[in-house]
Amino acid sequence: MSQYVAPLAKLIEHFRRLPGIGAKSATRLAYYILTLDPAQAQSLAQAIIDAKEKIRYCSVCFGLTDCDPCSICQAENRDRSTVCVVEEPQDVAAMERTREFRGLYHVLHGALSPLDGVGPEQLRVKELLLRLQSGQIREVIMATNPDVEGEATAMYLAKLLKPLGVKVTRIGHGLPVGGDLEYADEVTLSKAMENRREM
Amino acid sequence: MSQYVAPLAKLIEHFRRLPGIGAKSATRLAYYILTLDPAQAQSLAQAIIDAKEKIRYCSVCFGLTDCDPCSICQAENRDRSTVCVVEEPQDVAAMERTREFRGLYHVLHGALSPLDGVGPEQLRVKELLLRLQSGQIREVIMATNPDVEGEATAMYLAKLLKPLGVKVTRIGHGLPVGGDLEYADEVTLSKAMENRREM
Repeated sequence: MSQYVAPLAKLIEHFRRLPGIGAKSATRLAYYILTLDPAQAQSLAQAIIDAKEKIRYCSVCFGLTDCDPCSICQAENRDRSTVCVVEEPQDVAAMERTREFRGLYHVLHGALSPLDGVGPEQLRVKELLLRLQSGQIREVIMATNPDVEGEATAMYLAKLLKPLGVKVTRIGHGLPVGGDLEYADEVTLSKAMENRREM
Repeated sequence: MSQYVAPLAKLIEHFRRLPGIGAKSATRLAYYILTLDPAQAQSLAQAIIDAKEKIRYCSVCFGLTDCDPCSICQAENRDRSTVCVVEEPQDVAAMERTREFRGLYHVLHGALSPLDGVGPEQLRVKELLLRLQSGQIREVIMATNPDVEGEATAMYLAKLLKPLGVKVTRIGHGLPVGGDLEYADEVTLSKAMENRREM
């Protein structure tokens, strides 16, 4: 990369590490940064630092938040008797885009995958059981991804939760099998919520 | 974007403004930033600020540099009698990747385009004429893009420079017409340099 002046080479190197950004995209982005106003560049840099510094996991649902508990867990107009269990924080955002689900969430931070060494202890399962102790939660909706790990996780949790007297449902058909919850369109997701069945 | 926590929404907004980054890529990049170590995020942010703060235009060739004059203009082992005229700073990097050209550069910062209001005054033409006054430069190679504006710019400059007794050449065939110098491969660019002809 000796053909670039040092700070530019460094910036290109940084951009190349981002997912989905190859050498040419990284170079184009770096040159674009040089065309920005200093204030705009500063503001982009600050946004990166802020996102990293201000966003934590909610101590209740383990979704992303900048206050604790998060705005969803704190909201008074949400149905506190229903909890939707998802794998990743971005799945909460996908679900919220449907504007149909008005309950609470629980983010597992992954799915069971014994081959990768991910067991129940690596997920926020203990914390989910703790939330159920309040007796307020009547239904737990399993909205893990419709792939092998997601199904296994849903099955495992259903077995664990049903003896506690809580209704356990699985997000309905409509999601393309092998797909990723995060990228599902709103209609498919709404349909899937509507068609959920007891496990 | 109310489904995202505020600092995340802001970061996504910033990424969306980057060229070639759509809504989904911006979201994926923002979530990726959240998975970085704080030190890595800080380092990316700093690289953006540094690139913007440390990089200026060389006062001689108007290429990008973090010292003035730039390392190419200062290099003692380069041929000071040949100047390669390009449209943009990234074209210097493209040319340097060929490792064949050992002369100096002059960056115009654009090409003549009367419809867009770009005349010779908007380009670094005056500064090129100033450089020629030293009498050290014997050949000026026009390496503007092989499109309408680039050709017009090369013709215009050739007409302007030839009366000053300097040899003016045009980068040779080999570049696909309508293409962009920045993305030409090394072999094509080397060939083009080799096949340059007097204008």
